[in-house]
Amino acid sequence: MAGMNADSGLLAPVWAGTGLADLVSDEAWLRAMLEAEAALARAQAELGVIPPAAAERITECVQKGQFDLAAVAEQARGAANPVVALVKQLTAAAGPEAAEYVHRGGTSQDIFDSASMLVARRALDAIDADLRRAAGSLAGLAAAHRETPMAGRTLTQHAVPISFGLKAATWLQLVLDALERVRAVVVPAQLGGAAGTLASYEEYAGRKPNGPELMEVFARQLGLAVPVLPWHTARTPIADLGAALSFTTGALGKLAVDVQTLSRTEIGEVTEPAAEGRGVSSAMPQKRNPVLATLLLSAAKQVPANALVLAQSLVAEDERDGGGWHAEWQPLRECLRLTAGAARTAAELTGGLEVHPERMRENLALTGRGIVSERLNIALAATMGKAAAKDLLARLNREGSLDGAEELSGLPDLSAPEDYLGASSALVDRVLARAEKVLHHK
Amino acid sequence: MAGMNADSGLLAPVWAGTGLADLVSDEAWLRAMLEAEAALARAQAELGVIPPAAAERITECVQKGQFDLAAVAEQARGAANPVVALVKQLTAAAGPEAAEYVHRGGTSQDIFDSASMLVARRALDAIDADLRRAAGSLAGLAAAHRETPMAGRTLTQHAVPISFGLKAATWLQLVLDALERVRAVVVPAQLGGAAGTLASYEEYAGRKPNGPELMEVFARQLGLAVPVLPWHTARTPIADLGAALSFTTGALGKLAVDVQTLSRTEIGEVTEPAAEGRGVSSAMPQKRNPVLATLLLSAAKQVPANALVLAQSLVAEDERDGGGWHAEWQPLRECLRLTAGAARTAAELTGGLEVHPERMRENLALTGRGIVSERLNIALAATMGKAAAKDLLARLNREGSLDGAEELSGLPDLSAPEDYLGASSALVDRVLARAEKVLHHK
Amino acid sequence: MAGMNADSGLLAPVWAGTGLADLVSDEAWLRAMLEAEAALARAQAELGVIPPAAAERITECVQKGQFDLAAVAEQARGAANPVVALVKQLTAAAGPEAAEYVHRGGTSQDIFDSASMLVARRALDAIDADLRRAAGSLAGLAAAHRETPMAGRTLTQHAVPISFGLKAATWLQLVLDALERVRAVVVPAQLGGAAGTLASYEEYAGRKPNGPELMEVFARQLGLAVPVLPWHTARTPIADLGAALSFTTGALGKLAVDVQTLSRTEIGEVTEPAAEGRGVSSAMPQKRNPVLATLLLSAAKQVPANALVLAQSLVAEDERDGGGWHAEWQPLRECLRLTAGAARTAAELTGGLEVHPERMRENLALTGRGIVSERLNIALAATMGKAAAKDLLARLNREGSLDGAEELSGLPDLSAPEDYLGASSALVDRVLARAEKVLHHK
Amino acid sequence: MAGMNADSGLLAPVWAGTGLADLVSDEAWLRAMLEAEAALARAQAELGVIPPAAAERITECVQKGQFDLAAVAEQARGAANPVVALVKQLTAAAGPEAAEYVHRGGTSQDIFDSASMLVARRALDAIDADLRRAAGSLAGLAAAHRETPMAGRTLTQHAVPISFGLKAATWLQLVLDALERVRAVVVPAQLGGAAGTLASYEEYAGRKPNGPELMEVFARQLGLAVPVLPWHTARTPIADLGAALSFTTGALGKLAVDVQTLSRTEIGEVTEPAAEGRGVSSAMPQKRNPVLATLLLSAAKQVPANALVLAQSLVAEDERDGGGWHAEWQPLRECLRLTAGAARTAAELTGGLEVHPERMRENLALTGRGIVSERLNIALAATMGKAAAKDLLARLNREGSLDGAEELSGLPDLSAPEDYLGASSALVDRVLARAEKVLHHK
Repeated sequence: MAGMNADSGLLAPVWAGTGLADLVSDEAWLRAMLEAEAALARAQAELGVIPPAAAERITECVQKGQFDLAAVAEQARGAANPVVALVKQLTAAAGPEAAEYVHRGGTSQDIFDSASMLVARRALDAIDADLRRAAGSLAGLAAAHRETPMAGRTLTQHAVPISFGLKAATWLQLVLDALERVRAVVVPAQLGGAAGTLASYEEYAGRKPNGPELMEVFARQLGLAVPVLPWHTARTPIADLGAALSFTTGALGKLAVDVQTLSRTEIGEVTEPAAEGRGVSSAMPQKRNPVLATLLLSAAKQVPANALVLAQSLVAEDERDGGGWHAEWQPLRECLRLTAGAARTAAELTGGLEVHPERMRENLALTGRGIVSERLNIALAATMGKAAAKDLLARLNREGSLDGAEELSGLPDLSAPEDYLGASSALVDRVLARAEKVLHHK
Repeated sequence: MAGMNADSGLLAPVWAGTGLADLVSDEAWLRAMLEAEAALARAQAELGVIPPAAAERITECVQKGQFDLAAVAEQARGAANPVVALVKQLTAAAGPEAAEYVHRGGTSQDIFDSASMLVARRALDAIDADLRRAAGSLAGLAAAHRETPMAGRTLTQHAVPISFGLKAATWLQLVLDALERVRAVVVPAQLGGAAGTLASYEEYAGRKPNGPELMEVFARQLGLAVPVLPWHTARTPIADLGAALSFTTGALGKLAVDVQTLSRTEIGEVTEPAAEGRGVSSAMPQKRNPVLATLLLSAAKQVPANALVLAQSLVAEDERDGGGWHAEWQPLRECLRLTAGAARTAAELTGGLEVHPERMRENLALTGRGIVSERLNIALAATMGKAAAKDLLARLNREGSLDGAEELSGLPDLSAPEDYLGASSALVDRVLARAEKVLHHK
Repeated sequence: MAGMNADSGLLAPVWAGTGLADLVSDEAWLRAMLEAEAALARAQAELGVIPPAAAERITECVQKGQFDLAAVAEQARGAANPVVALVKQLTAAAGPEAAEYVHRGGTSQDIFDSASMLVARRALDAIDADLRRAAGSLAGLAAAHRETPMAGRTLTQHAVPISFGLKAATWLQLVLDALERVRAVVVPAQLGGAAGTLASYEEYAGRKPNGPELMEVFARQLGLAVPVLPWHTARTPIADLGAALSFTTGALGKLAVDVQTLSRTEIGEVTEPAAEGRGVSSAMPQKRNPVLATLLLSAAKQVPANALVLAQSLVAEDERDGGGWHAEWQPLRECLRLTAGAARTAAELTGGLEVHPERMRENLALTGRGIVSERLNIALAATMGKAAAKDLLARLNREGSLDGAEELSGLPDLSAPEDYLGASSALVDRVLARAEKVLHHK
Repeated sequence: MAGMNADSGLLAPVWAGTGLADLVSDEAWLRAMLEAEAALARAQAELGVIPPAAAERITECVQKGQFDLAAVAEQARGAANPVVALVKQLTAAAGPEAAEYVHRGGTSQDIFDSASMLVARRALDAIDADLRRAAGSLAGLAAAHRETPMAGRTLTQHAVPISFGLKAATWLQLVLDALERVRAVVVPAQLGGAAGTLASYEEYAGRKPNGPELMEVFARQLGLAVPVLPWHTARTPIADLGAALSFTTGALGKLAVDVQTLSRTEIGEVTEPAAEGRGVSSAMPQKRNPVLATLLLSAAKQVPANALVLAQSLVAEDERDGGGWHAEWQPLRECLRLTAGAARTAAELTGGLEVHPERMRENLALTGRGIVSERLNIALAATMGKAAAKDLLARLNREGSLDGAEELSGLPDLSAPEDYLGASSALVDRVLARAEKVLHHK
């Protein structure tokens, strides 16, 4: 059967095995298209346009009916979309008494776009839940390590001390930003008829001007937002989804890249949560790879490119774009399932991250007083001026003689990293307060 | 002088000649960095950390001083950012009494990021104003042509009639969406010190825990939002700017691609506003090219790619990313100036778009009854069923005999396109009501 | 079963139903990984490192064995790649006598990358064949319409006449360019061991320095190119594939966008080949949509974004990148199957494109003498100078009085478009000569 | 003056200060457009179409003349390209005797595209030279460190030993790949007239069929390749440039990301070449940042996105795309100048990279026998089977008891990393042999 098992997750361990991909599988999309057909019938029944019994029959069909996914997929090539073939199957399944009422006034895009939004809505809910779990864990880490000193690193070099709590708070801040962006996406039903005028629906309703009302009832039936206007070629929801999902994997990518760095053999400040079979290598028995961070990054590297396609879909020609619309579908699914997998992975990663304060301390010691050179600079500046102080310290650092330098003998001992954490704790508290608000909002 | 005039707009007619690029030029960015330095000094003076006179002197220097842009640009290569070289020039200019108070506790990224936000803030304001102008004009077009019939086109083929007002309302809807997204971007100051702890600022303040307060005063001095956390490596504002600007050029790109299509020699339903020298060709005297739409599309094709770089900047390593931060700058400028140019261009285009209802009518006539086949289908379905009706009409269309077909002789005359506009007018009104709210909100 | 039928083509009509996706399905990839394992065993047997019987047994296993794709996909999450789980299944299947010789010295990346190249090789061959079919058809169109005049259009406006043959030749030129780029991609085996030194293979060979030789025999066993160096983190083949495939869909996208424009209701100069069920609409019985061009564009809009991810994979950290490698897989598959679908679609489209010279003539007539204004300009320039001539013609065009203009009465009749085709025929011949070479090369 | 100094490099330290941006500045592009005009005149003179004196006069004008770049840039907005305004200036400068012969038969795109290719040609030559320098240095490093052991790292963890020579050889391999791709780009002149038929040129030549000949002479005059066909809307050279340049920065990005990792404070295996003012921080006197690698990465993160726009330009409508063509220009410049800056930076970086074999050895020691676990596995497998051996070693590693483990007491001492480098040296030699060929080819 052509194309079956084209993709069951073999190339996508970030979501394979999580069950999340089922939310956006072909079967989920097919089912959502059928739900849209049923909702349309019910909405038309509610407005008195078709007999309630027909709407019930169609709904029943959709719930119980067996549909041939493979046939729909293959026939999609003829119309350049799968709705035409699906409507045929549904019409046949509906039987003589309801067949006339299937897809009444409908156009492919109304059904397909509404189905996409249903699918997206469910995936977003899963993402939301996993992001909340991750945020909760990160809040815990930030609070527990409010004052755990570690090396701040800029351009890969030790800079000044930070607290691990501040680092966790930064990850948390980004996860909260992601949550807000995911929640802000409006996911509307689409109903417009062939060219967005709702004319066919009104015509079937005996030329009653109930198009906008139908749009509202239809959206309510699906649990989706009501659009101001049919969005055939005003692809705001598509672009918004791309932006929010790209943001989310980017935010989680920051966490991932830090975890990878801090897991480096030479650094060893954090370790991913252990699990049977996790992090193993086919060749090297000693390996314990940061695989969760790796999976997160695999998503962070793919989603923005898919989101780009979604952003470009805004430039849609006429009343339906020939190509741009069709180019949205797979990238939207990729964005949804990669992000859902990433959010789940982040929840796992943050839920069991092992932190090693002693290694943080040892690493801090590597640069000795160097890591507080900035602070020494400030102290010296009081007497010799900023510029001269900086030159002196740069020279001592270069010569490696900073720790015992005579020139600094007059200074009090300023080298304890935990004394140079600045506002780290206060900043952690600001983010924790925000988390409280964002997480308990839902 | 190496690099001067590297880019004065020769390759970017979408903004060259509008003056808008001055908002984001090297000079504007240099000036904004200086403003950030002055604001830092004033904020420190306000908190009693440095003498008010020093802050005044620095502010004065910034306002009057002559700085050598080319030298700063060239020396940026050493530190991989221009702030180090600029601080040297400012320190020299400040003179002995204020030199010590320049960039006190500051790190390059605090100054550069805050400057970027200042630049962005000003460009966003210009974009907002031009989008509002465009929205106003589109609202006028939508209202004026509420009932002007034209062919709706899907996949390049005549579909069913729409009103030109509905098309203009769709453009308007997207411009309003863009406006809301541009307005929703939070543009914060950045202040964190070397690694986001604010330690250097507090150290200079005599270890007073006033870091977060300084962050707030500094932001206020610059007229920027106060961040929850320093965003050294939590690049939300950068990603958000990319997303909003990419959305905006995409939204305007929809307008542009429609104007291009409707301007086609064979279609001729709209014409771009005429102006001396506009739309000319170097070879063909008869040409009047839709150049404004062309300029819009040139932006719509570039901005999403630049925004992709901005989205990817979220994956920022450590407390400062070596490369990712530096990769943001030019794409951010490109996004800002291309979008500003596009918004200005859209204001010009919509402000004078000529609409030709008679050509719309002639084009509608090309497909005769074909354009209302859907409606005929609905009428026939009442007696012969949807499927049989569709087959009949498809056959008549194929044979080209639809207009005189005997099989349809029993039907009332349904072919007037203006009678099959469905909810077009009601939908126009929904968008106009929204425009009222969005435009008068600011 | 989690993830099964995650994607069987429902959202991708450009390849669904063509059978091509089977070349790059999960099953194909799994099979290719197994082929790589078998080839490794045979190569080791050939070099005397393992017993020939073990290699035979493993090969047999691979050919006959039943492997549990879903389990492999789900377990891939543990190691962040599917090879570890697959090796377990293969080892079990190999039985006691051969188990020790499975994946001997192997690392996941060697198997996975070599499998990807096998998959790519087969997809490229299919693409090559379809591009050749398309090129053959286009050569036929270019030859047949060498002198068929039509309007050349620039910035959507009639410019000067061209021949349809020249347009077809331009499409052909791009298809030939694509063919050359697809053929130029070198598709090598990958063998390097855990970090690219081949140490494990040599260790198993009793520390014999036969690593490079093994690499060569292995590549030969797979019918793949021999690399200079293991390419663990030198991802040239991946980037090259992305570039060639992105080029190909872009080249076909040019054909598609032209077919769409020429198919517009108002233009009607070409029609896509008819087929049962092709181009239908769920709502409008009269529609005959240019669906093949639509499918081509849907690919052209997706592949470059996926290729971007592949290009970015070059920046691979260490001896195996944690995330970048994993981010390649799905985009590589997308590039391959979208391009394969597009090439097949292009072969269908060009194989039966209907051309309507009479509509071309009617459209040319729309602009009357306007379309040869350039030529009139040249004629007038001889007496009144280029600039004055251009101004005069621009004015006449604006006034719509070009056709009867007195000022032009002295000129010979220059308005026949077929007399102003310039070098069109000679240019067509240049491309046909090139096609002859490129197509008969293979 | 609007737009002047819009960009002089302040935001692009990867090229600011190198002088390379002058190759692709607005002035360079303006100059190249003028060169194209002069070459056209000379080519027409050579074919006897215009008087040789006119061609000389135009050439002289171009060489000596003063042109107003700012005015051209600003007026570009009218025609959506800068050529129309420039031709006006050139015509005025040419004086009465030559004015009629300026831009004769020319269309804006012929001049602009040919100019772009001239600019590209020169930038490619600079890139080639710097890549060769980098390759030479890397060959030196690979040879010098053929047997210097260091930790191979996969997914950030120590894997098995490699030689630093092999790592340098991998960088070299990629630079050679880049060189070959840069050299393979064909950079053709463009000449086609208004719609690619060369009709205007032949008309001016008295309807002589010399269009293709003119195309050849014109290309020769410019030192550019002769195209098979005018490439108005067959944008192969643009897409090819994007692909080759994106490849190049990606290849250099691999070098950069490795240098950054190896420079980490905790790793310290390499140091960037020191230079006055290089690597300094505005806040931290002790810092010596790997700024060259940072600059390389800043380019590697921007170029692929710009190349995407170039790849998408293939989908060009009609005989000139309204928007797509215009969207190419700035991204092409960005690709050229970022890549030129990156190649120069790579030459600097590789020319003076400091390597610290002793730190490599210390880091290897961190994992003790762990780093050769694979080898121990192979040794144990001989007696206890692969699977049992792997389980044993994994357990010992987990328990941290690998180094003194009794279970391994029967094994010979296998833990010297330099004894487990496999084919590293042989592989280095393969790449050096390739370098010999590639570098001495030009």
